[in-house]
Amino acid sequence: MKKLINAPEAVLADALSGIAAAHPSLKVDAENRVIARASGTKPGKVALVSGGGSGHEPLHGGFVGRGMLDAACAGEVFTSPVPGQMLTAAQAVDGGAGVVFIVKNYTGDVLNFQMAAELAVEEGITVETVLVDDDVAVQDSTYTAGRRGTGATVFVEKIAGALAEQGADLAAVAEMAKRVNASSRSFAVALTACTTPASGKPGFDLPEDEMEVGVGIHGEPGRRREKLRPAREIVATALDAILGDQPLDAGDETIVMVNGLGGTPLIELYVVFNEVAAALADKGVVIARNLVGNYVTSLDMAGVSLTVCKADADMLSLWDAPVNTPALRWGS
Amino acid sequence: MKKLINAPEAVLADALSGIAAAHPSLKVDAENRVIARASGTKPGKVALVSGGGSGHEPLHGGFVGRGMLDAACAGEVFTSPVPGQMLTAAQAVDGGAGVVFIVKNYTGDVLNFQMAAELAVEEGITVETVLVDDDVAVQDSTYTAGRRGTGATVFVEKIAGALAEQGADLAAVAEMAKRVNASSRSFAVALTACTTPASGKPGFDLPEDEMEVGVGIHGEPGRRREKLRPAREIVATALDAILGDQPLDAGDETIVMVNGLGGTPLIELYVVFNEVAAALADKGVVIARNLVGNYVTSLDMAGVSLTVCKADADMLSLWDAPVNTPALRWGS
Repeated sequence: MKKLINAPEAVLADALSGIAAAHPSLKVDAENRVIARASGTKPGKVALVSGGGSGHEPLHGGFVGRGMLDAACAGEVFTSPVPGQMLTAAQAVDGGAGVVFIVKNYTGDVLNFQMAAELAVEEGITVETVLVDDDVAVQDSTYTAGRRGTGATVFVEKIAGALAEQGADLAAVAEMAKRVNASSRSFAVALTACTTPASGKPGFDLPEDEMEVGVGIHGEPGRRREKLRPAREIVATALDAILGDQPLDAGDETIVMVNGLGGTPLIELYVVFNEVAAALADKGVVIARNLVGNYVTSLDMAGVSLTVCKADADMLSLWDAPVNTPALRWGS
Repeated sequence: MKKLINAPEAVLADALSGIAAAHPSLKVDAENRVIARASGTKPGKVALVSGGGSGHEPLHGGFVGRGMLDAACAGEVFTSPVPGQMLTAAQAVDGGAGVVFIVKNYTGDVLNFQMAAELAVEEGITVETVLVDDDVAVQDSTYTAGRRGTGATVFVEKIAGALAEQGADLAAVAEMAKRVNASSRSFAVALTACTTPASGKPGFDLPEDEMEVGVGIHGEPGRRREKLRPAREIVATALDAILGDQPLDAGDETIVMVNGLGGTPLIELYVVFNEVAAALADKGVVIARNLVGNYVTSLDMAGVSLTVCKADADMLSLWDAPVNTPALRWGS
């Protein structure tokens, strides 16, 4: 295993300490592994809390800041945070208007956020939970009952975060988060497996000329193994799966993310985006906004995920609203 | 070779087309492989042009935009652009106040930019050339006579770009660019070799338990091979080289970049930044600003580079000035 770390068991604490040192706009509770805005929550603002296993950076800590999350809970690598962390986060950021938990659909995350929601209610905090389950590759997987939550998390956090910033109430923010999830579909392909610090070896074997089609962000199996194909054909496969599940018509506006899984260089992501843009243009589908880069990663996995959100005017307007986080920043 | 591409010979054209599709703020001249601001140059503003081989994305095209570069020329992977591209770029963005060429110190880039400067002068364009040579690892290398130009390029382009945006004249912008370069030092370590699309195989062999200390951004050899060590010790080696060349005193303010080489996940970069912050704090050196992420990459190479710029108040103020490019964006 080749990693820039001190020791496998120190990775999360060291990285959180690095995040704290790099970003004065964030306040890192090292003991509880909660990353929150240093500025706190404005009274009356709905607070957004997310979290999950580490190894997907910048998700979620990199999306904490004005216009997006209020706090993120970091679990160990590929391991859900525990309810106590989520409760701590909710208590730290509740501004009296309630808290939205944004939960990627993995069994551990779902159970732990559910327990945290019950604990929070006991503490007098109103909580709405939004499940993200955008991955169309498989129905169930190693980590999940139902569809996995992946790239749409970024769209949900950005758009619902902007609405909360504008002063919307808890029900409205949760409703928008659910709408964004319901409008989004994702599909990923891996060229290599990722290696967790704890295991020290790749999570699966993938021959030198094959790819895993429909992979999950922890290296869970996808739909099938295939010979590696040109980017154009990989994009066609991903778009077939996405549009097969949510058809788009000519004139529909979308937000598209071409996301690197951690070990894929940016030049390849632009090659992929070029194919996505051409394929959608052929159908008359408009890419109104886009992200090309590393947003929801799987440690050092080489590969790409594609997320397409069918966006209405409200979503686009909220997308354009100011955001100031380590990983997304504009208009501010 | 596992890459998300259509064909090795199509990578650059496809990526440029993807950049054009993703960023409406940019205008991509596909034939000449020049990326410029779609808005053009305001008359009287000094224009900044950079460029170099591809494979280092987001460098340089990702730094084109308000507050930074006016245009970037893209060569083939790890190959200098040609003088005709640079001349085209200079002609496209000259606002009548002259053009600064920002050139990383690699033999091909230096010769081609020099020829382009001569051609530009014949066309009536005033040109100043600034050489970036911040890499303290080796004096000469496969691609370079003298020190290689690496991470400091980002600092030079950002700070000189901000000064140009404020209306400074050609001499002042070039002078500031030179000062930033003279104040910056870099050092890189590779855990794996990178694979160019054309060759299809890693540029060098590195045993499973070794790292290349002082590597260049094309995989050029560094100072030595060593057994892989903990992040803390790798940072100590890099900082020793950097501070050995440019001592810093307690109270000195710096801009620090912990830069991934393309195949290293963000969580590891934060582990590294944490060690840099601790080590500099021990010496009383202040990290006034920082970047942690992938800015100057080497295709899919796993590894990290560290760049430290001793920054005065002018540089920090220009660093904070608004910037709106694909890869750096704030205050706008």
